[in-house]
Amino acid sequence: MSHHYQSILDSIRNEVLPLQNDGAVANYIPELATISPNRFGMHLRSIEGHDHAVGNSNENFSIQSISKVFALALVVSLVGEKIFKRVGVEPSGSSFNSLVQLEYERGIPRNPLINAGAMVVCDMLIGQLKKPKNEMLDFVRMLAHNKKIMFNERVAASEKEFGFRNAALANFLKSFGNIQHDVDEVLDLYFHICSIEMSCKDLATAFLLFANHGKHPGNDEALLTKSQTKRLNAVMQTCGFYDEAGEFSFTVGLPGKSGVGGGIVALHPHKYAVATWSPRLNPKGNSVMGMKALELLTTKLGSSIF
Amino acid sequence: MSHHYQSILDSIRNEVLPLQNDGAVANYIPELATISPNRFGMHLRSIEGHDHAVGNSNENFSIQSISKVFALALVVSLVGEKIFKRVGVEPSGSSFNSLVQLEYERGIPRNPLINAGAMVVCDMLIGQLKKPKNEMLDFVRMLAHNKKIMFNERVAASEKEFGFRNAALANFLKSFGNIQHDVDEVLDLYFHICSIEMSCKDLATAFLLFANHGKHPGNDEALLTKSQTKRLNAVMQTCGFYDEAGEFSFTVGLPGKSGVGGGIVALHPHKYAVATWSPRLNPKGNSVMGMKALELLTTKLGSSIF
Amino acid sequence: MSHHYQSILDSIRNEVLPLQNDGAVANYIPELATISPNRFGMHLRSIEGHDHAVGNSNENFSIQSISKVFALALVVSLVGEKIFKRVGVEPSGSSFNSLVQLEYERGIPRNPLINAGAMVVCDMLIGQLKKPKNEMLDFVRMLAHNKKIMFNERVAASEKEFGFRNAALANFLKSFGNIQHDVDEVLDLYFHICSIEMSCKDLATAFLLFANHGKHPGNDEALLTKSQTKRLNAVMQTCGFYDEAGEFSFTVGLPGKSGVGGGIVALHPHKYAVATWSPRLNPKGNSVMGMKALELLTTKLGSSIF
Amino acid sequence: MSHHYQSILDSIRNEVLPLQNDGAVANYIPELATISPNRFGMHLRSIEGHDHAVGNSNENFSIQSISKVFALALVVSLVGEKIFKRVGVEPSGSSFNSLVQLEYERGIPRNPLINAGAMVVCDMLIGQLKKPKNEMLDFVRMLAHNKKIMFNERVAASEKEFGFRNAALANFLKSFGNIQHDVDEVLDLYFHICSIEMSCKDLATAFLLFANHGKHPGNDEALLTKSQTKRLNAVMQTCGFYDEAGEFSFTVGLPGKSGVGGGIVALHPHKYAVATWSPRLNPKGNSVMGMKALELLTTKLGSSIF
Repeated sequence: MSHHYQSILDSIRNEVLPLQNDGAVANYIPELATISPNRFGMHLRSIEGHDHAVGNSNENFSIQSISKVFALALVVSLVGEKIFKRVGVEPSGSSFNSLVQLEYERGIPRNPLINAGAMVVCDMLIGQLKKPKNEMLDFVRMLAHNKKIMFNERVAASEKEFGFRNAALANFLKSFGNIQHDVDEVLDLYFHICSIEMSCKDLATAFLLFANHGKHPGNDEALLTKSQTKRLNAVMQTCGFYDEAGEFSFTVGLPGKSGVGGGIVALHPHKYAVATWSPRLNPKGNSVMGMKALELLTTKLGSSIF
Repeated sequence: MSHHYQSILDSIRNEVLPLQNDGAVANYIPELATISPNRFGMHLRSIEGHDHAVGNSNENFSIQSISKVFALALVVSLVGEKIFKRVGVEPSGSSFNSLVQLEYERGIPRNPLINAGAMVVCDMLIGQLKKPKNEMLDFVRMLAHNKKIMFNERVAASEKEFGFRNAALANFLKSFGNIQHDVDEVLDLYFHICSIEMSCKDLATAFLLFANHGKHPGNDEALLTKSQTKRLNAVMQTCGFYDEAGEFSFTVGLPGKSGVGGGIVALHPHKYAVATWSPRLNPKGNSVMGMKALELLTTKLGSSIF
Repeated sequence: MSHHYQSILDSIRNEVLPLQNDGAVANYIPELATISPNRFGMHLRSIEGHDHAVGNSNENFSIQSISKVFALALVVSLVGEKIFKRVGVEPSGSSFNSLVQLEYERGIPRNPLINAGAMVVCDMLIGQLKKPKNEMLDFVRMLAHNKKIMFNERVAASEKEFGFRNAALANFLKSFGNIQHDVDEVLDLYFHICSIEMSCKDLATAFLLFANHGKHPGNDEALLTKSQTKRLNAVMQTCGFYDEAGEFSFTVGLPGKSGVGGGIVALHPHKYAVATWSPRLNPKGNSVMGMKALELLTTKLGSSIF
Repeated sequence: MSHHYQSILDSIRNEVLPLQNDGAVANYIPELATISPNRFGMHLRSIEGHDHAVGNSNENFSIQSISKVFALALVVSLVGEKIFKRVGVEPSGSSFNSLVQLEYERGIPRNPLINAGAMVVCDMLIGQLKKPKNEMLDFVRMLAHNKKIMFNERVAASEKEFGFRNAALANFLKSFGNIQHDVDEVLDLYFHICSIEMSCKDLATAFLLFANHGKHPGNDEALLTKSQTKRLNAVMQTCGFYDEAGEFSFTVGLPGKSGVGGGIVALHPHKYAVATWSPRLNPKGNSVMGMKALELLTTKLGSSIF
């Protein structure tokens, strides 16, 4: 099986290579726009703990919105389902409606994987943790078995300098009472979490948790209950890909999450977790080569959940 | 295994019985409001063709929005992916936004399982079929192995008499050019499809197609390709439950579709299709007992897709 | 004074002539697109009953939305302020929001001069009149002192054939219970009223009513009370020019109403009513030469209400 | 005439007195909620410079949104019509749509009298003035002939502490590039202007400018051109009363502006300016006694602009 996965990854690399000039690097903040665009990496870690990789799979990149899954996992491990009184679990439709939906639903974000929802999660983490930034980082390091994982302070500062829409969202949530702490403190945590840098290897390792009932493989400790893990996977399946959740469900057929840094991570329950990275994005904000690579993976394995 | 399924269904019936007075029967059209509310039926058909049932599983009821899956399957079998140029595959967010979203997206419904999307499907069927109503009925009969399946003309007439919001949607789509035939003809087909009456047994039998790569079990003919079947399952997973798609993904964890007649049908790829019926609905329009029964099923089987 | 008005009208004609190729004739229905575009007429009737005119002021054209004022005046004369329980008096913001606003405000149109509001007015007229179309026509003829005013049946038929957005609105209103009669009957009256053909002379004559406390000059009969007339003028001032009500308030500074047929009619309380006609429209749907002519009129007279 | 005005004001006071317990004081910020609610004052200043007053007309109160007119007048006097490239002149429809409208119209507020529009005005003032807060205060003092007019720093601080929705708006505008200076600096100016305290006498005196072609009575200097004054009056007429602009146009029939501090100021071009104050508000945020008093005024004078 190990050899099987490796040969599939090798052939995927060859098949996605022709796409390496398609799409554009995210440039809404200057720091992200400086990345070298023609990168591609992929790492698959099986439930048995075997690793398979191609390309720039050990190179660090900005995980951006993928971090929302970590923040959600941590808050769920701390307070359980209580978080879902302050944030929904339903897909959000087009981003165009995000503000009017918040207005209509009295400040309750549709789900924890849109920006507004992740801010509520951050607010709740601030209430639970003494040093939220440090403890968040420790949580991710522990999941990924890598103590070197860091924030990128320049990226966080750049987000803060240009993140007016996010500041609008946070203040709007506060006006409805669904942010309890200081708006600037919440945004600071939110921007830092988004700035975490990890490699495909780190991400595949960390997400194996979600493929394994909430237990870390090779470790008896249950970080999440089975039910909590199912909840997180269901949220990723229906809400993990901006306005392409339906498309990803079809073409890839796995729960997962993407980020504008070009990373995508997905998982097949009971089988494996897999991460890809390539900075050029399609018009909906998802990595061009990553989407194709994951589509090829489930096609070749014949193993989508559908 | 057969005996296993049966004992699980028996225990589910006992566990959902206390909920039999919870929720309210749909009353937006008079014809639906006349149903006897305290019904519960459930039918599971395995990929091997074994049947298991409890309660009122052979009683006919109005399948309502479940019919949208049949219409979509038929149009995909006729024209393939072309339908997705006129209707999206993404979840729609709250129903509140349905009209403004149609406006913003220039008349392209978000997906084929909301009313507007199903109307576009009906419009396309009218262009493909000589006798759309008859051929639609034949398709459903063939899938369910039951030639006695019929429209309920009183229900269709009642929908027509009171369906002003649907008439608004159809005219709005027409104003964008995304309905090509006569509005009244499209609505007539739409209302008739919604009025189809089937039993849990019929629905489980018909939906086995989607659990079996698009081939009818015991039949060599492929009605849908593997890829088309995956698409339909992905659409059901992300869009099948009005504003509870995320909740259903979590609590049940299977692709499926519900209707305001109280029916729900779901499927586990490669394993089984299952249908429940109970007319009392929760505030989001899904059957109270049906939702609970399916949650219990995947919990007891340990077999959600997540 | 009479001579004064006439010389001003003469000079206005010269000043607007250079604009005669600016803008485009409405073409959303084929019948309106056939009009000869380079027309310009203007007619002013003073409170003392003196007439002044230039250009094609006696030529008939499709009054379109100007008719909404007549329908509103008739319903107010019949039932008084009761109409304002079913339709508001506030401006509507951009047309983009019309449907979402109807949804948010539970089927109550913002004002009687947008399409949805005029449909509610038509619905109320049907409940009050035995032969609504005939009686509506008689009312307009009486106001304009012209028994030859007619519907244009081809225009009404063309509106019906292509008016899917209006059909959507009417059905949407009906779904909220704010249309009581048959949707097709309401639309038939609505489309007929819009198709009325009048000249600038007819319109200035008819609108003198609103400049004269609701009494027809040279006639003792009060068709509207002083208060009702004030209400109608206030509604025209704030809602009469689609998305240019504010702009018209500033540049012209009079209550008035425009139509996509190229007509505009305005009035200075206690002084005069004035109508212009020129078919080419600006991007917001108002006549280019008409807007300019009226701006010049109030500038030259030094007589806006502000 | 002077005696005439005075007797009318006296009778108005008697007629509005029974309403003194209707409505509720604004309580969205704690500082405003401390006001004694049963106050009523009214001051009319004629174009000839005669003053007439009743009740608490010399008592200071928080002018709140009335300040938006002063900010607009100052920016127009400095840069002319250029401001209208960054803010529209059309009414905004219901407040519900404010955010979605900003989104749809790419960050251009509908008019300068809604919060978002006034923030753009403040941003432009910051670019024009060395000491914006001081110069703004000087401008108001000059118009009102009263050097003692001051900000209420406690109210400004209270707005800042609780004004999350305004902070959301400002950041949202900034994300579209329609705020050029620091968000906190813009909000600081905005909150200070809103906190200005004036009496009815001050307001009537200051607004006489708008009734007198932009010249201060008894003063040769033109602060605004005739055209600019007309523009301001037109904007007040169509946009000055939140979601009651149409209602105010009808019942009062004058251009004006209200504030949640309970003040209303209106003007009859070429005749007079008039201010009322009473803290209890109707559900739409306008003073109950003030609205009634102004309705009585124009009824008794027979002098609305319609």
